[in-house]
Amino acid sequence: MNFILLSGGSGKRLWPLSNDVRSKQFIKIFRRADGQYESMVQRVYRQITETDPTATVTIATSKSQVSSIRNQLGEDVGICVEPCRRDTFPAIALAAAYLHYEKGIALDEAVVVCPVDPYVDNGYFETLAKMQKYAQQDSANLVLMGIEPTYPSEKYGYIIPKTKDDVSAVDCFKEKPDAATAADYIRQGALWNGGVFAFKLGYLLKTAHELIDFTDYRDLSGKFDTVTKISFDYAVVEKESSISVVRYNGTWADIGTWNTLAEAMEESTVGDVRLNETCENVHVLNDLNMPVLCMGLKNVIVSASPQGILVSDKEQSSYIKPFVDAIDQQVMFAEKSWGSFKVLDVEEESLSIKITLMPGHRLHYHSHQHRNETWNVVRGEGLAVVDDVETRLYPGSVLQLPAGCKHTVMAHTEMTIIEVQMGKDISASDKVKYSLEEKYGLHP
Amino acid sequence: MNFILLSGGSGKRLWPLSNDVRSKQFIKIFRRADGQYESMVQRVYRQITETDPTATVTIATSKSQVSSIRNQLGEDVGICVEPCRRDTFPAIALAAAYLHYEKGIALDEAVVVCPVDPYVDNGYFETLAKMQKYAQQDSANLVLMGIEPTYPSEKYGYIIPKTKDDVSAVDCFKEKPDAATAADYIRQGALWNGGVFAFKLGYLLKTAHELIDFTDYRDLSGKFDTVTKISFDYAVVEKESSISVVRYNGTWADIGTWNTLAEAMEESTVGDVRLNETCENVHVLNDLNMPVLCMGLKNVIVSASPQGILVSDKEQSSYIKPFVDAIDQQVMFAEKSWGSFKVLDVEEESLSIKITLMPGHRLHYHSHQHRNETWNVVRGEGLAVVDDVETRLYPGSVLQLPAGCKHTVMAHTEMTIIEVQMGKDISASDKVKYSLEEKYGLHP
Repeated sequence: MNFILLSGGSGKRLWPLSNDVRSKQFIKIFRRADGQYESMVQRVYRQITETDPTATVTIATSKSQVSSIRNQLGEDVGICVEPCRRDTFPAIALAAAYLHYEKGIALDEAVVVCPVDPYVDNGYFETLAKMQKYAQQDSANLVLMGIEPTYPSEKYGYIIPKTKDDVSAVDCFKEKPDAATAADYIRQGALWNGGVFAFKLGYLLKTAHELIDFTDYRDLSGKFDTVTKISFDYAVVEKESSISVVRYNGTWADIGTWNTLAEAMEESTVGDVRLNETCENVHVLNDLNMPVLCMGLKNVIVSASPQGILVSDKEQSSYIKPFVDAIDQQVMFAEKSWGSFKVLDVEEESLSIKITLMPGHRLHYHSHQHRNETWNVVRGEGLAVVDDVETRLYPGSVLQLPAGCKHTVMAHTEMTIIEVQMGKDISASDKVKYSLEEKYGLHP
Repeated sequence: MNFILLSGGSGKRLWPLSNDVRSKQFIKIFRRADGQYESMVQRVYRQITETDPTATVTIATSKSQVSSIRNQLGEDVGICVEPCRRDTFPAIALAAAYLHYEKGIALDEAVVVCPVDPYVDNGYFETLAKMQKYAQQDSANLVLMGIEPTYPSEKYGYIIPKTKDDVSAVDCFKEKPDAATAADYIRQGALWNGGVFAFKLGYLLKTAHELIDFTDYRDLSGKFDTVTKISFDYAVVEKESSISVVRYNGTWADIGTWNTLAEAMEESTVGDVRLNETCENVHVLNDLNMPVLCMGLKNVIVSASPQGILVSDKEQSSYIKPFVDAIDQQVMFAEKSWGSFKVLDVEEESLSIKITLMPGHRLHYHSHQHRNETWNVVRGEGLAVVDDVETRLYPGSVLQLPAGCKHTVMAHTEMTIIEVQMGKDISASDKVKYSLEEKYGLHP
């Protein structure tokens, strides 16, 4: 099966565990059977590949998420980078072009498009397989997922199917209604629109070529900023008469606030957390290396990361965004394709960070114009290259990197480095990248 | 006036702002007129010296508090170190011996003994001056402070005065009663025992020599561990017939729990804290360099330091001690006579700390057997001495200190150093101190 996963999202509503470079879907909150924690992205990717080990998965996303995706899903997953945000139709068109023109997927193969962050059970993926099958069989040009509603929500669009069968032609669509109208729709047998679509690749590319003037993936990517913003619903769904809907009635949650996230947690705490016996309905996510002690709290969420600390009544937590907007702060932690970093200390003219490199990975070969750096290797072994000269690194190695020097480090084992940056104008944008000879044969 | 301030206390009840080396009285929570924050110790010391600029103040304490006292009060305050804890009578006897045998205070001078951490207004110090005057005038051998009770507390001892005058002879003492009995005492005109005593130095030393076999301060200090534990109340007050009590009716609070501390805070937050408009009766003390955001909380205290994070219902916060006892953790921050440090990062075989040195101060000249260290100077200027060789330090200086080398740094301006410690057996006890030639003329 071919999957396109749409990965959008911002870092505001689940602050402080999300930030400007880590959207909510990358927060590791779900405990796997082996005791490790996984993120929403990792969970959905695992569920897809467990349901269909031969699945081809492509994530349609922005540049800012590429490092996190590589860090969490590795090198096997396809990534289609949107040069800028142009709403869902251009994003899906670009991903479809990527699959055909770059990956060679045939035009008569079915593709399933779904969000990267639904909180669902395995039945959801069986439904995706059915949708793919119906799309492949040409039973309709477009196959949608209809979620069996559990209450008259005002948050979702509604699909009215023609029959009550597991798969049915669609009678009509209804935009987000008020609660009374929603209850009326539900009595008529309406389903929530899950934002999941299946179609043949050729169908979507034909529609894309009709609406956008482009030749192939690279051409579309190059002119992406000139493409009209339009949603997939307006551009495709509303104009199509041959649509089927497949029912899904399992767990389906949109984890967009601390409150809904807490409901999806299997255990009430993550990290070093102690709750006394008088706490009720308390969830704590602690990403710091220090204990959190909670006493006598009711209906409270506590969340801590190097970015900050949130303590909120659960219901109030959905109003967080303007408060986070008002906090002007730099990124204090990030996952990168090569590992991760977190800020340990900030002074006016220095910044100390902890860098963790995964084995076999390396930093870009780069230099800084306005800052000197010192690397204190505290764990692991690797090879540094400074102005094309190699130096082996061990625990205890100290390397001074004056402004202007080209430098990188390749980790042979997992490495931890305390990097002290010194300069009057320390900025993430003060970086020039260089190519490094292929002889090192490592991941970039 | 001569003051002996008794400074005891542990780091449990006000965790995480207190720890094994910082007792509650050193937490900076009170905002001064100039906007700076001061601790309970600093507040009381300032109030004493503002009331009497010529006051001689000696703090009777344990070795573990000396660094914090020097850091917060400087070099002028006297410190009498109890070699071990032997209850209040030996502690006061040792301090009295220190005043006479080491500081040359005459036997006919009056001395006032009081706790280091009462939360009081300036009238308290005027009352101390009266007590000192009555003791000096020999109006009684012992002068006590009687606090006008505000409710029938079961927590305090009661003093029954013979008259309702501002100063009165004492009729009798009552141990901590139940509430009904306390109400009865209050109807009889009883006062709370404030734990404050004034006497002539000769009186106390005579009593001390009667109860303990010692010659002078050094002799008593040397045999302190063999002295019988006994409180000042049992050893002196209960046996004395010539006792006066002086009334005090201003603010008087024992700040021993987060709940009482919150009541004494002039503003509801300290540090980078944001409360939304739905918070009620919330106090937040944030000692971390990151924002704390609170939403929709009621009657909650939040406290954060490098030691950990507490989020507690205010009433529940008084039950904190067993939970803190159960947290097995190293000291993550401390104030030292030369400045302060905090732990930035802990790995199995490394520890990274941030050291701040006050100008004109230096570390002890010392070496470690089992660890190498690297100093990354990020702010300020000074002079390092490594195996008797001097090196000037500037922002950006990096100094490698292998195990065994003798090293120190003297700060010419306020300095900040990121110290990376490396070794299999990193321990605060792995330290050998050396004397440094006097030519540097700096504080030890």
